[in-house]
Amino acid sequence: MMKFQGKHILSVSQFDREAIAKILQISAQMTPYASRKKRCHVLEGAILSNLFFEPSTRTRVSFGTAFNLLGGSVRETVGQENTSLSKGESLFDTAQVISGYSDVIAMRHPQMHSVDQFALGSTVPVINGGDGANEHPTQALLDLFTIQSEMMHFNKGLDDLNIVLMGDLKHGRTVHSLSKLLSLYDNVKITMVAPKALQMPDSIISTLSDAGHEVVLTETMEGNLYCDVIYQTRIQQERFASKDEAELYRGHFSLNKSVYQKYCQENTVIMHPLPRDSRPEANELDTDLNDLDNLAIFRQAQNGVLVRMALFALTLGVEDQITNYEKPVNWYTNKNT
Amino acid sequence: MMKFQGKHILSVSQFDREAIAKILQISAQMTPYASRKKRCHVLEGAILSNLFFEPSTRTRVSFGTAFNLLGGSVRETVGQENTSLSKGESLFDTAQVISGYSDVIAMRHPQMHSVDQFALGSTVPVINGGDGANEHPTQALLDLFTIQSEMMHFNKGLDDLNIVLMGDLKHGRTVHSLSKLLSLYDNVKITMVAPKALQMPDSIISTLSDAGHEVVLTETMEGNLYCDVIYQTRIQQERFASKDEAELYRGHFSLNKSVYQKYCQENTVIMHPLPRDSRPEANELDTDLNDLDNLAIFRQAQNGVLVRMALFALTLGVEDQITNYEKPVNWYTNKNT
Amino acid sequence: MMKFQGKHILSVSQFDREAIAKILQISAQMTPYASRKKRCHVLEGAILSNLFFEPSTRTRVSFGTAFNLLGGSVRETVGQENTSLSKGESLFDTAQVISGYSDVIAMRHPQMHSVDQFALGSTVPVINGGDGANEHPTQALLDLFTIQSEMMHFNKGLDDLNIVLMGDLKHGRTVHSLSKLLSLYDNVKITMVAPKALQMPDSIISTLSDAGHEVVLTETMEGNLYCDVIYQTRIQQERFASKDEAELYRGHFSLNKSVYQKYCQENTVIMHPLPRDSRPEANELDTDLNDLDNLAIFRQAQNGVLVRMALFALTLGVEDQITNYEKPVNWYTNKNT
Repeated sequence: MMKFQGKHILSVSQFDREAIAKILQISAQMTPYASRKKRCHVLEGAILSNLFFEPSTRTRVSFGTAFNLLGGSVRETVGQENTSLSKGESLFDTAQVISGYSDVIAMRHPQMHSVDQFALGSTVPVINGGDGANEHPTQALLDLFTIQSEMMHFNKGLDDLNIVLMGDLKHGRTVHSLSKLLSLYDNVKITMVAPKALQMPDSIISTLSDAGHEVVLTETMEGNLYCDVIYQTRIQQERFASKDEAELYRGHFSLNKSVYQKYCQENTVIMHPLPRDSRPEANELDTDLNDLDNLAIFRQAQNGVLVRMALFALTLGVEDQITNYEKPVNWYTNKNT
Repeated sequence: MMKFQGKHILSVSQFDREAIAKILQISAQMTPYASRKKRCHVLEGAILSNLFFEPSTRTRVSFGTAFNLLGGSVRETVGQENTSLSKGESLFDTAQVISGYSDVIAMRHPQMHSVDQFALGSTVPVINGGDGANEHPTQALLDLFTIQSEMMHFNKGLDDLNIVLMGDLKHGRTVHSLSKLLSLYDNVKITMVAPKALQMPDSIISTLSDAGHEVVLTETMEGNLYCDVIYQTRIQQERFASKDEAELYRGHFSLNKSVYQKYCQENTVIMHPLPRDSRPEANELDTDLNDLDNLAIFRQAQNGVLVRMALFALTLGVEDQITNYEKPVNWYTNKNT
Repeated sequence: MMKFQGKHILSVSQFDREAIAKILQISAQMTPYASRKKRCHVLEGAILSNLFFEPSTRTRVSFGTAFNLLGGSVRETVGQENTSLSKGESLFDTAQVISGYSDVIAMRHPQMHSVDQFALGSTVPVINGGDGANEHPTQALLDLFTIQSEMMHFNKGLDDLNIVLMGDLKHGRTVHSLSKLLSLYDNVKITMVAPKALQMPDSIISTLSDAGHEVVLTETMEGNLYCDVIYQTRIQQERFASKDEAELYRGHFSLNKSVYQKYCQENTVIMHPLPRDSRPEANELDTDLNDLDNLAIFRQAQNGVLVRMALFALTLGVEDQITNYEKPVNWYTNKNT
């Protein structure tokens, strides 16, 4: 069994199925604390350094919230201008200094593999909050947790899943990492709906095929969306040679209510890594889906708090102590009544 | 009686006199906690999202401080660059996500009515911290609270008040909102001292007149400043056609010690929304008033903490529980001894 | 005996030897709390305003961490754009307002003496976190604390110290302030190794000589590095007339392993204010020293937390109450096991 305490969380590739199961199990146990039904202060006095060398409201606030909900304090750094790094300090030195102040570090950085380099100099666990086009493991984990918890309503799990990935599958790091995680389970069918130029990289497809999963590559929504889960990502106009070419694709790889009702199962769950571009010219998830129960995109974002709470508890070795540090509940109980 | 729990605070227009009385009463009850004579942790474990899409040190820090003083934690976002909104995310989606992390949200945004739109997507109470030229209700409430608490020294209340508003009354949203609130009370005399081009909008004057109050419009300080309270606002040079025109007005609508001693009552209270421009070329409240007991501008700023504590307690429904969550006082008691 | 409670910390010049001894003693007492062996909440409910008008990750996070470790909350402001100061507000007014929200303020500002001006308007203690080329007293104190704690391993103290300052001694405010502090002790030998154009200012040299200390000025490392402590600072290329001149000096005033082994004592302690420029073209402390036990630079950075905890405890008058506010330790005890 993988030991989490004191370990860095840098890539989804570091986990086997058993380790993932542990993370998802602890994440689920965080539900009453995240929903303010119970109050926990197991990390009181601990300090998270939230180091966002590249800004990101959603991920940054989610990490900070998760740490606060366990009772800890958060020290935050946003942006890269005027930092010591810009004065030539190495990531190793920065890590030595900041880890001397902190109990755990969450870090986002625009450069690929920068978080790995930083972790080499850190004396405390480092959690990768996204390093450029490389990895964003907490997003992949919250996606997997969301699939699991949504499937539970239909008495299904992560095995025997029928999932569609749609949009720009070439550049989206979230669908790459999710695919790697799904390859750990049994008998998954993955349909990749994307323009040819934006299909999933071969290496990911091989990982899935080699593990014995069924992979379908297609440019057509028709007949290909009958599934348990659709994971939609954005197709950015700048990926195309011309505006005309982008126009041509518009609508061929995006979901709205009429497409959903025509091609999907009755209960197909819709996911999206967010933010969703709601401007009319965007080629994304339509807002006419907002009243659908199976639109899971906001539950998915909320699950990020659960997964990050779990990762903090695991890397700091307190996952078994949570209930010892429950406080009497006060106003929370009445929160949603 | 208006119910506050779970409600948004978006505009002064949403309150009647009874609701205002409740807010001012709870604000006053916050005094021992804000002055560190008592310690309260009723909101321990609760999270405020302080969303300042437009920077504002004073208002932002005041909201955060108020929440900390009730025992809660604060997650903060400042500025709009690189946020999801700039990637086309709707305010509705942002609200859905951020409210999933938070117990209450304080928000400032440069665009009029943006906070209203945001509130539609939020699952927790949203407090408007200023939306462009539109509203800044917590400023208006702290202004009203300040008038009430200053008048108490002279055995007066908010009825039968004699108040002067001076400066740029056309563009200052604080004087607009304060006027609306004052119209709820009885027998108020309001004198508007401003250059003609910068007088109070007709709609506000009508609101006051229709409610039976005495409104005086004038361009002259002489004979018009004998009052309980002067509320001074800035006249910005860029409001005038030319620098010469601005020069012409300079000094005609600003207070200094000699003007105060010449035209005001002995105990006229001086207010200002701050920041006050202390540069010599500015047309503002003179620093030679700093040693006057009746200069209430810094007490006014401090009252912002009381009012914001009250609004958090009310919207989260804990206003009756504060004393149940008092902790033994430690070093605070000695703070100012 | 100097009273610290309620006092500002603006300059190293405000302390005599007895006051320094007190600060260093309280700093040492903070060790178990900073290393998470014990948990203290003496400042629970207190608020630090961390006002960084000039960005600085290291110093800002260190102040915030120190306050969190004593149980307090931190409200932070970074950068100067769009602040009230840019709208013409005086430092006095800003101080009046912010101190009304806070129990103590840590402030950095690019302008010399701005923190002094600010302190005049503050109703709570202000700690100078660096005001341009003027002062950075907490850095000087952490440097002194580091020398003391490193020397302890060799049964030495701050008297009879043999120290080398090397690099740009003209512009480095850290070496100026440290020299002033060292002049308070007995029988110090200070060797200043620097290019002539970048030697220590005469006023600092006089302070040391007048106090009876031995001062050696030299341009040569050879024969001059046999000492207890080397304090290395950066020589910035832009200080020289030409790139050629900078090249000429490169290597003459910087430490690497071979220089260290050739000229230093067996146990010479190496210090540096950080950040260290690790780019190959930089003229700084070589990374080949990283595996040396006597490289104290990261311990030095960590000591900043101890010293800042001590200053908060002293200025808020709780230095004798720390142990009364210890909480049962939870997961911390296992942190490094």
